[in-house]
Amino acid sequence: MILLKLGGSLITRKQEPFSFRHGVMRRLAREILPVAEREPLVVVHGGGSFGHPLALEYALHRGLSSEEQLRGIALTRQAMAELTRLVVGALVEAGVRAFGVQTSAIAVCRRGEPERLELGTVRWLLELGLVPVLCGDVARDAELGVCILSGDTLVRELALELRPRRIVLATDVDGIYSAEPGSPGAKLIPEVTPESFGRLAPEMRSHDATGGMRRKLEELVELARRGYTSVIINALEEGRLRKALSGEKVRGTIVKG
Amino acid sequence: MILLKLGGSLITRKQEPFSFRHGVMRRLAREILPVAEREPLVVVHGGGSFGHPLALEYALHRGLSSEEQLRGIALTRQAMAELTRLVVGALVEAGVRAFGVQTSAIAVCRRGEPERLELGTVRWLLELGLVPVLCGDVARDAELGVCILSGDTLVRELALELRPRRIVLATDVDGIYSAEPGSPGAKLIPEVTPESFGRLAPEMRSHDATGGMRRKLEELVELARRGYTSVIINALEEGRLRKALSGEKVRGTIVKG
Repeated sequence: MILLKLGGSLITRKQEPFSFRHGVMRRLAREILPVAEREPLVVVHGGGSFGHPLALEYALHRGLSSEEQLRGIALTRQAMAELTRLVVGALVEAGVRAFGVQTSAIAVCRRGEPERLELGTVRWLLELGLVPVLCGDVARDAELGVCILSGDTLVRELALELRPRRIVLATDVDGIYSAEPGSPGAKLIPEVTPESFGRLAPEMRSHDATGGMRRKLEELVELARRGYTSVIINALEEGRLRKALSGEKVRGTIVKG
Repeated sequence: MILLKLGGSLITRKQEPFSFRHGVMRRLAREILPVAEREPLVVVHGGGSFGHPLALEYALHRGLSSEEQLRGIALTRQAMAELTRLVVGALVEAGVRAFGVQTSAIAVCRRGEPERLELGTVRWLLELGLVPVLCGDVARDAELGVCILSGDTLVRELALELRPRRIVLATDVDGIYSAEPGSPGAKLIPEVTPESFGRLAPEMRSHDATGGMRRKLEELVELARRGYTSVIINALEEGRLRKALSGEKVRGTIVKG
């Protein structure tokens, strides 16, 4: 089984609310099709400019403290439903038998960490030969009332539960850099291990609007500690996703387990 | 708590694929708002011209027997996701804090009957004061591989689990008739009881394309046997839904528990 994360900053334009990259997603879907026809695949997508701005505006990541946030919960879920529909729509159109599975319907969290994921439907879809598509989502939190279960945390949990043989994080950057990409001396780091991560962290910079890259890396290092190797790639470059899903070596950062 | 079913033939035009009645749904949302502000509410919607034609085309109600049906499973789910998005969108726009909950993510069936419904997210939403919106859906079936869990069966199950004090089935007809509506001598039957149902059944006619009215009535009679009263109304008539949700008497058929 292969686990693929489609980053929010890859499939949407982060700065422009509700801006889906239709053309990019159509191409990604075509790159996904061959591997989806060959072996089981689970897709997770992030919130991008659909879920993120609303979750931040209503401070849903900080738990439930005011009545006003209830509207934010409704709006965030609806935004994510819309984004999943667009992702699944592009996949189905390309011939991938994709089936959205609503994260907030199957997850219970505690302080933002998943405490339980009901994966019966996901396992059923994999058995049938369909491709479950989950997303980062607003979720029930047993302690905070509500939380944001990020796509990256979901990837970690799904990996531990479903034991994929390959994990690909498709983003809009080439991988982890030694400093802000584009700044003098910034170099792509081709490989991170749990050991090198400790030395790396202090100078590592957050590469997207929500500090996602640091968090992403932390989740992947946690997976590496448990023996799972993953790779971060720039899927805006045509063909990279297809190659990475097939196990070919491409430019990116391997987080080695 | 109030349980409301929005029939597929009410919110879509049954004969025309993917035809959502935007104007009707906007009005229904406005009629729902006052009651949603007063007390807990759960909404279920049917498949109408979104899910129904695909489920029939791929014979998903008969279980899994061919590879070709996998595409039908993907398409049916995607169609229902789209319909839920439209229903929730209209509700949220009217000010109802609606939150879609994907039925296929929480249900396991056996021969088309729900064996288990994971209602944690639904209960959480009700506690917070949000309005869960579920739908009839393609679902996992432990025996058949796949099945269609109809909105009406879901209403019955949700009623038994959540114990609503009122159940309203909003459709596009006035209720149960003694014969095909419009035919000579056809009369609206204002009240059905489990006792009168036995006498009624032989001459009762199916009033919509999918035989839905007979099935609907059977589910409601089953609820009546367990003490739950429900009412079938024509929500194409302005104001009827609002009144029925408030417990006012309107033209329709009461299925008395």
